[in-house]
Amino acid sequence: MKYKAENLCEFAEQAMVKGGMGTEQAASTARLLLEADLMGHTTHGLALCGPYIKSVKAGDLKPHGEVNVVKDSGGLVVWDADYLPGVWVTEQAINLLCGRVPTHGITAVSIRRSGHIGCLQAFLPIATEKGYMIILTCSDPSVVGVAPYGGCEPKFTPDPLAVGIPTDGDPVLVDISSSITSTSRLLQARRAGEKLPGPWLLTPDGETTDDPEVGFADPPGSILPIGGVEYGHKGFGLALMIEALTQGLGGFGRVDEPTVSWGASVFIQVLDPEAFGGKEAFTRQTSWLAQACRDTKPRPDVDKVRLPGEKGLALKRDMLAHGVVLDDAVREMLEKLAEEFELEFPEPI
Amino acid sequence: MKYKAENLCEFAEQAMVKGGMGTEQAASTARLLLEADLMGHTTHGLALCGPYIKSVKAGDLKPHGEVNVVKDSGGLVVWDADYLPGVWVTEQAINLLCGRVPTHGITAVSIRRSGHIGCLQAFLPIATEKGYMIILTCSDPSVVGVAPYGGCEPKFTPDPLAVGIPTDGDPVLVDISSSITSTSRLLQARRAGEKLPGPWLLTPDGETTDDPEVGFADPPGSILPIGGVEYGHKGFGLALMIEALTQGLGGFGRVDEPTVSWGASVFIQVLDPEAFGGKEAFTRQTSWLAQACRDTKPRPDVDKVRLPGEKGLALKRDMLAHGVVLDDAVREMLEKLAEEFELEFPEPI
Repeated sequence: MKYKAENLCEFAEQAMVKGGMGTEQAASTARLLLEADLMGHTTHGLALCGPYIKSVKAGDLKPHGEVNVVKDSGGLVVWDADYLPGVWVTEQAINLLCGRVPTHGITAVSIRRSGHIGCLQAFLPIATEKGYMIILTCSDPSVVGVAPYGGCEPKFTPDPLAVGIPTDGDPVLVDISSSITSTSRLLQARRAGEKLPGPWLLTPDGETTDDPEVGFADPPGSILPIGGVEYGHKGFGLALMIEALTQGLGGFGRVDEPTVSWGASVFIQVLDPEAFGGKEAFTRQTSWLAQACRDTKPRPDVDKVRLPGEKGLALKRDMLAHGVVLDDAVREMLEKLAEEFELEFPEPI
Repeated sequence: MKYKAENLCEFAEQAMVKGGMGTEQAASTARLLLEADLMGHTTHGLALCGPYIKSVKAGDLKPHGEVNVVKDSGGLVVWDADYLPGVWVTEQAINLLCGRVPTHGITAVSIRRSGHIGCLQAFLPIATEKGYMIILTCSDPSVVGVAPYGGCEPKFTPDPLAVGIPTDGDPVLVDISSSITSTSRLLQARRAGEKLPGPWLLTPDGETTDDPEVGFADPPGSILPIGGVEYGHKGFGLALMIEALTQGLGGFGRVDEPTVSWGASVFIQVLDPEAFGGKEAFTRQTSWLAQACRDTKPRPDVDKVRLPGEKGLALKRDMLAHGVVLDDAVREMLEKLAEEFELEFPEPI
């Protein structure tokens, strides 16, 4: 069964409005969750509609209102988002930075106490379509899951880093975590009753394991940073950078022991190549390298070398043309929302 | 045999002056190469004196002069460094950014055509000592060694990322490459006739190997990005970010087919926490997390969890108090320089 993208977006927006979210917040959230689905990130797509509505009900997610501007010097901004819907908060922030970056060359925002921000990759085209490079990163100071290199107790989150790089063609859309795997991947493997593809976790005693259950045990195990027991100082270093950018610059984090879980500390930076060597000079380099990578001889078990985001953008084009496929679990959840809120669930095409 | 740090620094400076380098360039280079040795990075310490002097002789490294300012908008700067000594260029750039960051909150420089910049970690304290966060990254557009994820031909450099994070105590000094290992590590293993600790390379046919010789064969193999064949999209993503920041923003890179090898495209960013949530709020978060990581239960084969830079800073204190130990090969190279330039090599203490 396939659905028209705009019908799913409209339905998701209506469902979140019925679930209490403000219209502006619901519209942005629906659009960007769908964007995640279109790019293949089904765990961070419309699958989050239900959990977001639950968070509103539980009082963890403030359904509407405005962010508090803690500081605004033009190019640099600090917001306290009061646990408003993080997808909407992040879209607002990127739009603000893109609007101001021609004046400042680099603009940045640090956001305290945002709600969950969903799929980082989905936001990147907002900036790359305007010719800007964007660096987007976040952490959740209320949660731990990843161990520092050398240790076997979780002390921080998978701390993702997303980077959008314009080229003459499709942008490069990097979205990686600083840990080998993510919490949602653990949940996926757990639900499917499967092992992980590698020994990506540590037991509380520091033994490596591929058993996702270890992440949810008591005491919990921990996810290894990128590089694992072999060279995990690399993922650890990245995580420390991200914790400093998100919670350090924001001035709110783990030391404050936030009680609202599933929040986010966010740092976003937009760079205008015009303020450096020029837009044309920038895309000349990035386009050349992108093509050089695509032209690389693949390993025997790989069909071709793909750039970050390439597969997602191809999938998006296909789904916009031929319809969106939903996971069974996601469709069932959305149908339940339709029933609960007396909304019509879109007809398949 | 141990040497007084200041004696080695003075000797290295004199040797590089005799080798043709300008006094200012030689003084900065000697000081920061020694700093690398003090922090344990012996491949990027005084070991580079000989190669730098050779580069001057070969005409690849311009021994003195000034950088060309391509653009300067106050907070953002583009330099063309004309292959001047990169260690000196980088120190100059960081000093400039630190001087201006109180006005702009974020300052950044993009440097084209720098000479080799040595050990990235050695520069970070210049900014962290002033309470600033610093992000320093570089690539060499004249060299390839690392394969894009999925491919088995080298297309870019190990592309390091260094991050200095102030805390109430010692700073966190991250210095990681976006590939599993670095070219200097390959050379080290090759010289020692040893295998690498893991299958970190690919043969030209895409088979993994721990044989460093593969990196120097014809056709050459390639170094795997962080994450290897398992999840190398992470290292690939980091490398693409770094290539865009260094060569894209600088407007000079691989597409220009630079003929001077051992050069560097550099991107440096200095962030003033005062422009965001405040310096105290920043170090409150970073100090807490640093301590939480240090307090983490170590894995069975690890004595304690250490932060990036912790071991290096301890080593530096020890060597400043009790003398600097040099590798035999480095001491021999320096003694040869003493002979060639009729300089007195420092007496051991």
